[in-house]
Amino acid sequence: MRIILIGYGVVGQGLTSILQRRHAETVKDYGFNPKIVAVVDKGGAAISPRGLTLEKLQAFKKNGSIATNPEFGHPKMTAIEAIESVEAEVVVEATSTNVKNAEPALSYITKAFKTGKHVVTTNKGPLALAMPALTELAEYNHVYLRFSGTVGGGTPMLEFAKRCLAGDKILAIKGILNGTTNYILTEMAEKHISFQQALDSAQKLGYAETDPSMDVDGIDTACKVVIMANWIMNKKLTLKDVNIKGIRDVSLKALDEAAKKGNTIKLIGSIDGDKPTVAPTEISKRDPLCVSGVLNAVTFVSQFAGEETLIGRGAGGMETASAVLRDLLDIRHKLATKLLT
Amino acid sequence: MRIILIGYGVVGQGLTSILQRRHAETVKDYGFNPKIVAVVDKGGAAISPRGLTLEKLQAFKKNGSIATNPEFGHPKMTAIEAIESVEAEVVVEATSTNVKNAEPALSYITKAFKTGKHVVTTNKGPLALAMPALTELAEYNHVYLRFSGTVGGGTPMLEFAKRCLAGDKILAIKGILNGTTNYILTEMAEKHISFQQALDSAQKLGYAETDPSMDVDGIDTACKVVIMANWIMNKKLTLKDVNIKGIRDVSLKALDEAAKKGNTIKLIGSIDGDKPTVAPTEISKRDPLCVSGVLNAVTFVSQFAGEETLIGRGAGGMETASAVLRDLLDIRHKLATKLLT
Repeated sequence: MRIILIGYGVVGQGLTSILQRRHAETVKDYGFNPKIVAVVDKGGAAISPRGLTLEKLQAFKKNGSIATNPEFGHPKMTAIEAIESVEAEVVVEATSTNVKNAEPALSYITKAFKTGKHVVTTNKGPLALAMPALTELAEYNHVYLRFSGTVGGGTPMLEFAKRCLAGDKILAIKGILNGTTNYILTEMAEKHISFQQALDSAQKLGYAETDPSMDVDGIDTACKVVIMANWIMNKKLTLKDVNIKGIRDVSLKALDEAAKKGNTIKLIGSIDGDKPTVAPTEISKRDPLCVSGVLNAVTFVSQFAGEETLIGRGAGGMETASAVLRDLLDIRHKLATKLLT
Repeated sequence: MRIILIGYGVVGQGLTSILQRRHAETVKDYGFNPKIVAVVDKGGAAISPRGLTLEKLQAFKKNGSIATNPEFGHPKMTAIEAIESVEAEVVVEATSTNVKNAEPALSYITKAFKTGKHVVTTNKGPLALAMPALTELAEYNHVYLRFSGTVGGGTPMLEFAKRCLAGDKILAIKGILNGTTNYILTEMAEKHISFQQALDSAQKLGYAETDPSMDVDGIDTACKVVIMANWIMNKKLTLKDVNIKGIRDVSLKALDEAAKKGNTIKLIGSIDGDKPTVAPTEISKRDPLCVSGVLNAVTFVSQFAGEETLIGRGAGGMETASAVLRDLLDIRHKLATKLLT
């Protein structure tokens, strides 16, 4: 399987590393023989039909861009040009999220579809703004769109819901879906510090961006709610359908009051019926959902099997890259089954 | 798919109920059209090639045995005779666990294999004592053996590990796998009562048996460790390979000491390398694994995706029956795929 990788940040580098380290096993266990034939970053593209190795890519990444490689580099080539011109089966889209207009990722994904390529993305923007349309476009072009890494990082939240509860029915989903806000709320409650102090600490540790709005205003959580509602519960939602309230107004007083009752306040994203919501919510400290620090957790309420809670790290380059590998294996499996029918 | 159901306790009744309630969906979503053609309990068998309904079975269950039904009843027929004589594709074995010699379930399962029938079991006994041999016998007879309900009740612990971490590698597993002991330890720590008092309370609530040895001596947990090690990590273990220590000697003093450090003591079953172990273990109250009451929890340590913890109720008739349905759907899916190859 030939792969065009767009974006060479922590996820792209993690994927290149995992594919090399697990190569013997993926071939043996899954009949999956991946080859990264092109990588595009802001400086241009590196292309090799025989496959690019981590070592060569890393060496030139250190120089500023992989495109500076004299053997494989195409310093002026854009992602769109690479998707159009390089022969490959799959585009892995791992650029950063933009929830205003989802660009440039949206154009990359649609271009991939139109040139007959499957897409694996770790980018919440295009899905949050246009998931129903993208799903249709993929179907129309007979290609697959996969996005496990957009929810839960490496923790297989989406796969769990889709694959592990066959025959049952998921009635509701609720989760702590953003590690940054969970870190801030945990610090406030445990160290008795203000929102601003906890935010400063999160920024120092690299958990929060300089502009922390995506996290603290609940937008990142809302994107994940949209993706889960559509993928797991067959909704047709976009970001504007979600009722969103962030954590800027959570006070120490409210946290103290909650603590007196054995509770705490967490930023919960939920879908119960047709009301997707993101809001600070009081929950019991004994609730399995009540995880601390940067952990993520999701509870699935099912008709027969009861409530299941899945907990894991919600971020990380290597973790998210492992989700991309799962998606690639899923596409490979789907294609193999399709050939038989 | 024609099913012979052996054992008509809470799981058997739950399954009959779920299959009826979800019938329209299982046909539509999975092409799965199940029919319970025979049910065997201690009083004999009820047989109907056209399918037995919950209503008819329940009416005669109330009279003592389903075999008293004048239309379908065969009061003297044994499970072995039913497996031999009734035409069916699958045997669902839902009798109670015996870890001495695994009988009579072991004979039922091997008889099913030898007559070409797939088996779904919720019974830990045969797996704990003879899983490597049973797996081989199933392969030799070209039939499937499935047992999701043996670990985690309705919570898909086994499926999660097998299906949701493709391409990754599970390095270690640790879990709270027995609700009864977890209830006892939670009560001791929170209410500051003795082991005996907590056990009495568990027995009153129906969480513990009159002879509580299977639970409190760690045998139930050890059975689940064997099943997970074999199924998930490709080991060839039986119960005698597990180093087992139960909770009878956990003192209030030890729980108090642990609490001072922000920890508590839980009965943990684990597989790390080649050392399957069951023992009371001190863990942090902040560890996602640290669930209270009758909940079960398992942490999978994977190479790339990090640590994932799955939490749910570990028992319940309806919950365990939902695991049987998942197994039936898996067999149906495997058979459909096989036809194509």
